[in-house]
Amino acid sequence: MKLQGYTLPQTVTGRSSIVAPPPWHYSGEIIAVDFTAPRDAIASLLPEGLVPVPDGAASVVFADWCSASDHDDRVLADPAVGQYHEAYVVLHAMRGDRRVGRVPFIWVDSELSLLRGQIQGFPKKLGQIAMTRPVSIGRGGVRKAEGSRFAAHATSHGRRVLTASVTIATVSDRTPRAATLPLVHTRLFPSIDRSEPAVHELQLGTIADFECGTAYSGAATLDIGSTEFEELDVLKPASVGSGYVFSLAFSVTGGRVEPI
Amino acid sequence: MKLQGYTLPQTVTGRSSIVAPPPWHYSGEIIAVDFTAPRDAIASLLPEGLVPVPDGAASVVFADWCSASDHDDRVLADPAVGQYHEAYVVLHAMRGDRRVGRVPFIWVDSELSLLRGQIQGFPKKLGQIAMTRPVSIGRGGVRKAEGSRFAAHATSHGRRVLTASVTIATVSDRTPRAATLPLVHTRLFPSIDRSEPAVHELQLGTIADFECGTAYSGAATLDIGSTEFEELDVLKPASVGSGYVFSLAFSVTGGRVEPI
Amino acid sequence: MKLQGYTLPQTVTGRSSIVAPPPWHYSGEIIAVDFTAPRDAIASLLPEGLVPVPDGAASVVFADWCSASDHDDRVLADPAVGQYHEAYVVLHAMRGDRRVGRVPFIWVDSELSLLRGQIQGFPKKLGQIAMTRPVSIGRGGVRKAEGSRFAAHATSHGRRVLTASVTIATVSDRTPRAATLPLVHTRLFPSIDRSEPAVHELQLGTIADFECGTAYSGAATLDIGSTEFEELDVLKPASVGSGYVFSLAFSVTGGRVEPI
Amino acid sequence: MKLQGYTLPQTVTGRSSIVAPPPWHYSGEIIAVDFTAPRDAIASLLPEGLVPVPDGAASVVFADWCSASDHDDRVLADPAVGQYHEAYVVLHAMRGDRRVGRVPFIWVDSELSLLRGQIQGFPKKLGQIAMTRPVSIGRGGVRKAEGSRFAAHATSHGRRVLTASVTIATVSDRTPRAATLPLVHTRLFPSIDRSEPAVHELQLGTIADFECGTAYSGAATLDIGSTEFEELDVLKPASVGSGYVFSLAFSVTGGRVEPI
Repeated sequence: MKLQGYTLPQTVTGRSSIVAPPPWHYSGEIIAVDFTAPRDAIASLLPEGLVPVPDGAASVVFADWCSASDHDDRVLADPAVGQYHEAYVVLHAMRGDRRVGRVPFIWVDSELSLLRGQIQGFPKKLGQIAMTRPVSIGRGGVRKAEGSRFAAHATSHGRRVLTASVTIATVSDRTPRAATLPLVHTRLFPSIDRSEPAVHELQLGTIADFECGTAYSGAATLDIGSTEFEELDVLKPASVGSGYVFSLAFSVTGGRVEPI
Repeated sequence: MKLQGYTLPQTVTGRSSIVAPPPWHYSGEIIAVDFTAPRDAIASLLPEGLVPVPDGAASVVFADWCSASDHDDRVLADPAVGQYHEAYVVLHAMRGDRRVGRVPFIWVDSELSLLRGQIQGFPKKLGQIAMTRPVSIGRGGVRKAEGSRFAAHATSHGRRVLTASVTIATVSDRTPRAATLPLVHTRLFPSIDRSEPAVHELQLGTIADFECGTAYSGAATLDIGSTEFEELDVLKPASVGSGYVFSLAFSVTGGRVEPI
Repeated sequence: MKLQGYTLPQTVTGRSSIVAPPPWHYSGEIIAVDFTAPRDAIASLLPEGLVPVPDGAASVVFADWCSASDHDDRVLADPAVGQYHEAYVVLHAMRGDRRVGRVPFIWVDSELSLLRGQIQGFPKKLGQIAMTRPVSIGRGGVRKAEGSRFAAHATSHGRRVLTASVTIATVSDRTPRAATLPLVHTRLFPSIDRSEPAVHELQLGTIADFECGTAYSGAATLDIGSTEFEELDVLKPASVGSGYVFSLAFSVTGGRVEPI
Repeated sequence: MKLQGYTLPQTVTGRSSIVAPPPWHYSGEIIAVDFTAPRDAIASLLPEGLVPVPDGAASVVFADWCSASDHDDRVLADPAVGQYHEAYVVLHAMRGDRRVGRVPFIWVDSELSLLRGQIQGFPKKLGQIAMTRPVSIGRGGVRKAEGSRFAAHATSHGRRVLTASVTIATVSDRTPRAATLPLVHTRLFPSIDRSEPAVHELQLGTIADFECGTAYSGAATLDIGSTEFEELDVLKPASVGSGYVFSLAFSVTGGRVEPI
């Protein structure tokens, strides 16, 4: 094959491709809020084989990522490429007897992340995401410390879809559940010449070097909006639980696919 | 299948999907510039089975599109979704005895267009594109008339990749070639669990209702830049030909795929 | 004075200045919707000397502008600089016995327009604005014709502040009032060393070459939102009147200032 | 005065104003590179009363700011408002026998910062700025540690104006000069009814609570570009010196103005 590249555009060198193949590495700052939603609402957004957990648990996660790619040193080198924000909802679900996560909606502010996500089955859309970033000196920002309020929000199609905050009360003694659930994705690439998809399969990422920094937790607020283009209304929180602020890192070395 | 949608995200209604299936309709304003590049440079960017035309002809095309979808009335209804700009290079090539076009690089400023393009095999990246838009009254802009200068440029990764202008001299008696070449695309969707792509095939769009408005032509300028992430350097113009300003419309009703 | 420039940054040539002095020329496409709001709400947003009209008339105006500057040919030449969108509310008011307009809130998607506006006393903020742009061929967009629906919206701080539509029913026999009211602005530039502003005065622009294209009118919809940073709530429409779609052009040759 | 607000837009509450009056607080992460330029080039960009230092010293500074305002708690609370990036050139100069700094060009990615800067006399334009952000865990980013490469770049008008990197070699024993020079600004607000500016004066900010974190230094690279709208060409580096990566915080409590 003369033209090279894991994705389009392909060239002789392969270096114009938007995405290089895994391994991909991630180091980020997370703001997460647990909430519950009606179980039938959650069930309506799960693929076959997944059922909601009994209490309708779900989480909203905001992430300020730095990312790197073993096969493309430009991702680490150029902050405009490797760094991005994302915001997503993760529904807690049972797959057989294993607790898993499912991401029905996710927004990112990066082309690389958008397409790298589509390859994994993350249903990524472009959005505008803002998150409080901790500071270490001065009065211009807030520290990762008791009493500090971390805020985050995401906008899609000109409308606010997620607005959250966490006021740090304590250091949590456990890793926030929102970060540790293994995610079950759907890889989907449509055909152009027929109605059946060209690719339609479940995907579970292969994760390595998972690391979670000190997790701060506290009371949280969460508001879920919607747009003409996103159906988040059904997930209006029945209750809002704790919020978490923490550093997170892991690598995606590949994935396992299963038929749907 | 409970979860519906031509693309992710899938829901019960299918209305959260970023892209709806074709037919897709396009009405736009075009600024195009013909140029030539070294034949070996063009050859290096063509897939197997395509060879450069003898004179190394190529074009740069800027488009200010309005688009619509038969299966999603929101595309026409919301100008933030249906409308976008794109800029691309099209290499003129022979496929057997048929003159075709190949798009090695293309930028758009729209999520919908990015993914709708990937489905067709357009190697779309996100970019910032600006084009002179004609006016009909006043002194704030330029008219589609003799002596008017239409400018266009595209930026990717913070660097100018295409800068062009056309100064209208006359009404052209033919449809600009850049708009009429049938395009040969490569659909490519990578695997996550192995190195072979999940989808890798040629694609030729099925075009209907092609319509070209009055084409104005004149002397043109063209500058091709590059970035750390795009390999346009090889296409530095050997000569710059005429430029064109015209309205264009067509529909994509589907496509035909062929093995690579 | 060695360093030149109508605004910062100043250099020897003056050509780095963001704004060049007037005359400024404007040619644009307008979508406007008339509405009424409670008179006390309107009164609360007017400066001394202006009173609401009896019926609480107001308008929302969206504009897709091309602009030019007599003293900076780059504004016309570079579409990324001269072209921009804006969206604003105009309150109809009496100043003595003269009917005038007052713009309490306005958003633009252009740095040049933001600062050129501040110089005139337009209270411009940055926003994201989208407007249906008419097409002349094909099925990708809508024509300026009976039955066509033109939509427009504006987002500020991640929240939708204005959402409007006009469905064309007829050609209007009058120039839409929203476009013809002389505007009374407040020029305001703060001090850094004391609490009194350095500049605080009324400003009425000197307009030349006013021209309005065919005005199409019809039934309209309008939704006014708000953000944590903008106080539009008080202007929630009491009634929504007709909407208009038309081309507009004029020049600003300077202005007249009056003490507050 | 019924309508309140330090800047436009003014309302009864004053809470729609883009900027609230000082004090303003800043906490940020800095990437800075020292360089030298021809003294006559520097002289051409200085206001009367300032002369270049003998070696033609200058610096490029990138900052990732969190900011807060004593009179508007929304700045700290909303990360989309208080947080932003900026990039600027600072020329080292003598004003009498005092070494000062002068900022001839600066770009920010925030409306609040743009206008807050204009009030102080910073010649801020909008740009797109990216900076390596340090991480504390994982392989997705780089740490503030020996051998790490921090990159930064700024784009204006679709063209790269500044591209820099610092590879950390050591902990610096002094506060980087780029951060400590007192800045001499020009406040400039044009008139609309005559050619003389309405405001034209020097401004020196009143700084409090200046704090600089550990400064890492090392070899640096710097590339200065230009656009049709910015005259940076004269500042092409004669030599590139050390680079610095550090945290910085201070407050602006007001300023002192002097006639020009």
